[in-house]
Amino acid sequence: MRVLEHPDVEEIHLEAVLHALADPMRLEIVRFLATTEDGAACSEIELAVTKSTGTHHYRVLREAGVINQVYRGTAKINSLRSTDLDTLFPGLLASVISAATRRSQR
Amino acid sequence: MRVLEHPDVEEIHLEAVLHALADPMRLEIVRFLATTEDGAACSEIELAVTKSTGTHHYRVLREAGVINQVYRGTAKINSLRSTDLDTLFPGLLASVISAATRRSQR
Repeated sequence: MRVLEHPDVEEIHLEAVLHALADPMRLEIVRFLATTEDGAACSEIELAVTKSTGTHHYRVLREAGVINQVYRGTAKINSLRSTDLDTLFPGLLASVISAATRRSQR
Repeated sequence: MRVLEHPDVEEIHLEAVLHALADPMRLEIVRFLATTEDGAACSEIELAVTKSTGTHHYRVLREAGVINQVYRGTAKINSLRSTDLDTLFPGLLASVISAATRRSQR
């Protein structure tokens, strides 16, 4: 079973997290994952981009420490690293998700 | 008197703000400005970069809507657009500043 590389908690940097979140597609992914209990497969999240562009966005989020990705069969299941991020940067993820959500509702 | 261009509140975008904050020098500037009452001249904020690189970072922050820049004589005085940002993205700036500050104290 392939295992994808993730940064340890102490390897997660504020700048990398902010950079990962500074993109409309990646904000969409994060916002969707925040609504799920156990994460979601990439195929469940509709993005208006090609598959390879989508894969790139998930990788940026994973390498920054924003999401976990695990294989279930051939599908990658994505989930937010909410606990890690809340420990490192209290309130940050929640404020970004809520700002992105408010905008999408305007 | 020269006036520098700033985005109106409704022109401030979450992605641009996150991108502007996703840099160690710019986080330094924001963190410093958060400690001031009336803002600070660029010369008051020590950055380990050349003057032109510093100017670039201030411009990115201004164009994203994170700071105000006004001329006082020949000096640019910088201040955080805390009220605008708090209205648009409640809690975001505070959580970023507090995360950056905690790190700098480690």
